[in-house]
Formats: sequence, structure tokens, C-alpha cells
Amino acid sequence: MVLLFSVLTIVLEDMIMNAEVLAVGTELLMGQIANTNAQYISKRLPDVGVGVYYHSVVGDNPKRLKESLTLALKRSDAVIMTGGLGPTQDDLTKETVSELLDKRLVLHEESLKKIENFFKGVHRTMTDNNVKQAYLPEGCIVMKNNNGTAPGCIIEKDGKTVIMLPGPPSEMRPMFEENVIPYFEAKSSYKLVSRFIRVFGIGESAMETEILDLIQGQANPTIAPYAKEGEVTLRVTAKCVRDEDAQQLLDPVIEEIKKRLGNTVYSTEDKNMHQAVGELLISRGISLALAESCTGGLIASRLTEIPGISRVFNRGIVCYSNQSKIENLGVNIKTLEKHGAVSRETAVEMAQGILKTSKTDLGLSVTGIAGPEGGTAEKPVGLVYVALAHSGGVECKEFRLWGSRERIRNVTVLNALDIIRRHVLEQK
Amino acid sequence: MVLLFSVLTIVLEDMIMNAEVLAVGTELLMGQIANTNAQYISKRLPDVGVGVYYHSVVGDNPKRLKESLTLALKRSDAVIMTGGLGPTQDDLTKETVSELLDKRLVLHEESLKKIENFFKGVHRTMTDNNVKQAYLPEGCIVMKNNNGTAPGCIIEKDGKTVIMLPGPPSEMRPMFEENVIPYFEAKSSYKLVSRFIRVFGIGESAMETEILDLIQGQANPTIAPYAKEGEVTLRVTAKCVRDEDAQQLLDPVIEEIKKRLGNTVYSTEDKNMHQAVGELLISRGISLALAESCTGGLIASRLTEIPGISRVFNRGIVCYSNQSKIENLGVNIKTLEKHGAVSRETAVEMAQGILKTSKTDLGLSVTGIAGPEGGTAEKPVGLVYVALAHSGGVECKEFRLWGSRERIRNVTVLNALDIIRRHVLEQK
Repeated sequence: MVLLFSVLTIVLEDMIMNAEVLAVGTELLMGQIANTNAQYISKRLPDVGVGVYYHSVVGDNPKRLKESLTLALKRSDAVIMTGGLGPTQDDLTKETVSELLDKRLVLHEESLKKIENFFKGVHRTMTDNNVKQAYLPEGCIVMKNNNGTAPGCIIEKDGKTVIMLPGPPSEMRPMFEENVIPYFEAKSSYKLVSRFIRVFGIGESAMETEILDLIQGQANPTIAPYAKEGEVTLRVTAKCVRDEDAQQLLDPVIEEIKKRLGNTVYSTEDKNMHQAVGELLISRGISLALAESCTGGLIASRLTEIPGISRVFNRGIVCYSNQSKIENLGVNIKTLEKHGAVSRETAVEMAQGILKTSKTDLGLSVTGIAGPEGGTAEKPVGLVYVALAHSGGVECKEFRLWGSRERIRNVTVLNALDIIRRHVLEQK
Repeated sequence: MVLLFSVLTIVLEDMIMNAEVLAVGTELLMGQIANTNAQYISKRLPDVGVGVYYHSVVGDNPKRLKESLTLALKRSDAVIMTGGLGPTQDDLTKETVSELLDKRLVLHEESLKKIENFFKGVHRTMTDNNVKQAYLPEGCIVMKNNNGTAPGCIIEKDGKTVIMLPGPPSEMRPMFEENVIPYFEAKSSYKLVSRFIRVFGIGESAMETEILDLIQGQANPTIAPYAKEGEVTLRVTAKCVRDEDAQQLLDPVIEEIKKRLGNTVYSTEDKNMHQAVGELLISRGISLALAESCTGGLIASRLTEIPGISRVFNRGIVCYSNQSKIENLGVNIKTLEKHGAVSRETAVEMAQGILKTSKTDLGLSVTGIAGPEGGTAEKPVGLVYVALAHSGGVECKEFRLWGSRERIRNVTVLNALDIIRRHVLEQK
């Protein structure tokens, strides 16, 4: 059985188109930004039958760009390039690709008009160097940019495909979805379909022990765990032909994992914790108000990323001063004096206060020491209290976290949201 | 003059060691994570005279890993590898490198003891596959892992250096700082020093027009612009010998750029907008309170990333409901009925309300339509009002932004913080 599946896997791997993501930009090599474009593209391509085998990054240097593209064209069926389409002197992706593929750059009138209109729309003067962006390799498929000035393009030559996308993610992503996804969809007869199971409240090795036999017996789908900042993601990937229902392969495996890991599984659709909790609240019509001290509005800002959250999210108080805890939440000054701002007692009064004033179903509070300053022997950096108030009473949990200010704040957010999630699920 | 500088640049470029960051891990090629390790390493290496010319990512596949490493050794002096040092079957970086460099893997007793102690410390049973992590290539420099089980190592062969680091950033970063930085520091006699000028309130091409002669006349230092989400970063890089004061090369160029771009320059030390504004408020002792509607706590969460901000940041109200705008900020119900929650009038009352209740020096409010829902012909998605109240009165600015919910929120945050920054700077 396993052998049969392995053979199938190898056959499919050979028949799936393979791509390389080649990013151009010295800002990546200088560490100014992370290559999140490669991440985004890599996550999407398997959905349309394209496997990603390599990422590469090269600077704004024609010689090295040419060498990298030559190599990519040798080892990959498709090369997806990002960056270097801007108006400035060091943006040279189009020029270099055209030279290598022996294509002339010609003015694309429609793109020029679009660029001119873009500048009119934002009431800015178009400078001469923006005209350069309307020149595209002859015979290419032009991809419109509805979020900026640089158009993208697709070039086919000798059975290979080169795709050029702009660098800014806000321009790259919509262009990719509107053009590149349909392009490969029309070409491919195989696909890789992944589901991501997200788990919180169990360590990586403890989790692996629970499902080790499933991981080891894997063939199609395959299962791979990945751990970061207090949570674990399991990737379950099925390889199949285009019209086959991948979910039929995935569902039984995912069900088995869910059975083993219980309610530590918070999403089987690769939603992050705030999406999962936000959508849970919206779907159940459970309203929420927040009182955040050490997380400083981080929980509110994450929840409000979700469209439609205003239906259940009433308000948040970032009570960074004692004055605010007293005035906005009705915390007793004596509680603050006796137990301090970072204490179980204060957390409880904060949660009760926000519940009472906002009249929501749930009131959640967070108070803690995120560091690096402010810790004492008795109350060290990383000490955090999270309290949840509701009509049935109030519960408070103490955490002792480690790491940087950033890590402590992030892990606090995850724990706070998980408390809401478990409470709502227990209500049925 | 320009010619002379160019020659110097070429000479220095040749004498500076160049490195490639080669990451190993299918989780990167599947887009589960972004390659933040490459970003971290790339940001640090120039400080010790190592330039980064390439990033590559390859999966947990011995054949492709071998090919990528062969290429990297051909084109780079040093190859810095991350990932694939774990205990599981698909972790094969050490095995592949050793085979390629013709080194035996030998048991490193000290590492084995460290791994055994690590498991004792966390009260977990050590499994057999963890012993594999204590095998290292013969003759290598061992790098201890104080934050996990996998030791790293440095191998020198035929004038090239191969460095293997663990994948998890919390293990990679300290190991890199404690071992790799001193290793290159001892070797190099040249260095690249960069300063980053951050600019807001001017488009990329308009900015380039202002400083085009500087960019074109560049040699040492070089100047390169990079644009993202409404702001532009200029990288100014000097190449010099180890003991030379790079700032003497950088300072005059940075001064000239500042003179040309005026107060659109908000940092010459690569601080992002919230850092720059937060530190400005702390240094001047100017207190702030926030009333955020469409940004949902994003401004508060960014400002509270900064240690010590509690000295000036009093509170934030995430007034996601009209009820909260009335109760927490004292907005008049008639204003909301007549002009709506997204209006100049409401923004002004929100700012005045938060200023009055928190008794801070500044009260900033934000209200807008972040989308994708909620827009009308009269009030489209992207319409945002930002008001700033202070003892001298209140000012309100209207914005018409475009893009996704995420982009509109992020650009709103930048604009709101920039309003605070300009106000404070004008006060002298």
C-alpha cells in the first residue's frame, strides 16, 4: 500500500510543472525586507499544479541577474520574477530579461495611458522616468496593474515561461491572482492540494508523539509539522490529477488528526488564531470588548483586520496608565495600590469593568510585564494575567512567558484569544 | 572625480568577501514561512565586511541541495546555510555537505552531553534520533546551541567557508551573533556601512527627481531608493577599510539629501515611523492619547512596541461602535446622526474628547472606511479623517486612500503618525 502510493507520488512529481521564484532587489540582499513575495507565490502555485523547487534572490545587478535567470530557465519550467519594474535607474528586470530572451522593448500605449491616469487620480505630476514603465517586451502577455504604475508581463519562449511582477506586495498580489493563477490553471492537469491544521496549547514533540504513526505511514497525503512561537502547524498535502477531488484524500487524514489532538486544533483551514476567533464570534453573534494593558491594542488591531468584525467587536480600551484603568474601566484605586497594575485582582476588575461599561457578552482583559524594563524578583518580565468576564462570572489565568518584548506580546495575544475560543466552544 | 570613485568602488568590491545565504527547508518552498533568517543574516554581515550577493532556498531534497551548494561554492567565498539540522529523517544538511566536501561525520561527545542535559532540563525523554544531532563533520569548528538541541558548525575547505546554522530563528540568531560575527570580524579588513534615510509624504519618482544628480554621481557612498506602501527608503552605503570612519563618507551625503528633501525625511537611522514618533514624544516629554476607529488599535499597538513608551502614552480608545464614541469620547449623538461616524465633524469631536478625558498634550483621532464593505458613492472605501487636538486647537485632515483593507489601515497609521511628528517638530 505504502509502496503503491510512493510510486504514484514520484510519477505525479514528475508530471507537475515546476517553478522557481526569482526576486530582484538589493533591498532583499541588504536585509531591509524579508522575501514575503516568495512566500505568497509559493503558497498559491501548488493550487494550480505548479510545484516550487527553488527561491533565489539577486541584487539590482545586470550580470548576476542574467546568470541567475539563465540558471533558473535551465532547471525550471517557469520563472516567476518579482521586483525591478519601478521607474528608477536601478530597476532593470525588464531590460535584462529582454536582452537575454532576445526581445525588443516596445511602448505599450494602453499601459502608458493607465500610468498617466493613475497620476491624475492621485493629483500628482507624472515624471519622465515613469514612461519607462510602459515599455514591455514584444509579444508578451501584459498584466495590468490596478494598484500602482508598473505593468507586469508573461513571456513564453522555447517551452519555458518567464513572468515579471512588481515588487510591492500590494501590487504583486492582486496582479498574481488576476493573471498568473488563471494562466497556470489553464495549463496544468495535475495539482498539489495542501490543508494546514493549526494547533495551539501542545508542544511540537508531544504532538508528534500523538500522531507519529500517521506521519511515518504517510505517502499521499503527506504530513509535515512546523513549529513557531508557541503554536504548531501541520501541513497535509495531497497530490492528484486535476479533476480528482483532493479533499477525498485529505478529509479522512484530517479527521483522524483532529480526533487525536482534540480541541488544541483551532483551524483546519490555515486561519490564524485571530481570524479563527473573530469568525467564530461573528458566526455565533457573540459580542466582545477588550481592556488591554501590556498588549497595547495588539488584540484589537488583529481582530479588526477581519472584515465585518464591527458586528461583534464593540470597543477596546488600551489602558496604558492607571488613570485610564480607573476612569475607563472602573478599577478600584485601592486594588491598584494593594496588588499593583499587574495582578490577578486588577485583571479581574478590568475584565468586569469593560464588560459592564460596554454591555457585551464577553469582556477580556490583559495586564502584564512585556519588558525589557519593569520586572522585579516578585513580578518578573513575562508575568501576564488574562481575565475573561461574562454573564456566568469571571475567570483569570496567570502566564509566565519568556523571550523578547515582541515575543511576550505575541504569545499573550495567542493565549488571550485561545481563552475566548475555548470559552465560546464550551458554551455550545 | 567620479571615475576615481568608481575605480575605488570596484577595487573594494573585489576585496570584500562575498557570501550566499542558502536556506534548506520545504516549509519555505511551500510558503509556510518567510525566509526571515536570510533577512537577519544579510542585515548583519556587511558590518563585518561581508557582502551578500545571493539568497537561495532549496527543499529537503539531497540532489537539489547538493547542486545548490555546488553552485554557491563556485560563486561565493562563504555559504551560510540555515535549516535541516533537526533530529528527523528529512533533516539532511550535514549529511549532504559532508558528502560533498568529502568529510566524515564523527560523534562530538560534548554536543551529545549538551543534548542529554537539555532533555533533562526540560524533563523530557531524549529519543534515539536526537543522537544524530551530535554527529558533526570532522575538523569543523563547533558552534554551541544554547537555545535548542542542534549544534552548528563552520567548515573551511579550499579557501571557502561553509557555515551550518539551525533553522528556528530563536536558535539561529544567538548562535550567529556568538560565533559567525566574530569569525568574519577576525578575517576581514574591509567593511560595508549603510545608513537608511526614511522619507514620507513624497512619491518615489518625485523624490528621485529631487536627488537624481546625487544618485547618478554616486560612487562611494552609493545611493539606492526603495519604495513601499506610501513611503520611500534611501539606502546610502559606504565601502571602506576596516579602521576607516565610514560616517565621514556618509555624513555629507546624508546632510545633502536632508537639505533637498526637507521635513519629508523622518529618520536617518532606519527607524520606522512609529519608532521615530514614539522616541520623539519620549525625548520631548509630550504625552499622547488615541481615539482609533478604522485603525482598530493599530496605532496604539505599534507605539507600544517601543520600550518606555508608557512614560508618554496615556491611553487609547478603540471606539469601534457609536456607543463607544459617545461614552468614552463624549462625541455628540447629533453629530453622529447628522454627519455620520466617518466625517470631519466626528473626527474633530473624537480628538477633542480624548484630549479632554485623558488630559494629555495631544489627542489624535482616526475614523474612516477601511473596506472592503461599508463604502458608498459619497463616502467610498478609503475615505479617512485624522484629527489632532492640542492646547492650541484642533486640526483635521481628509485622506482618500486606495487598496486593500490592510493597505488602507497601514497607510492611515503612517499618515496619522506623520501628523503628530510634524506638529511636534513645528513646536520647536
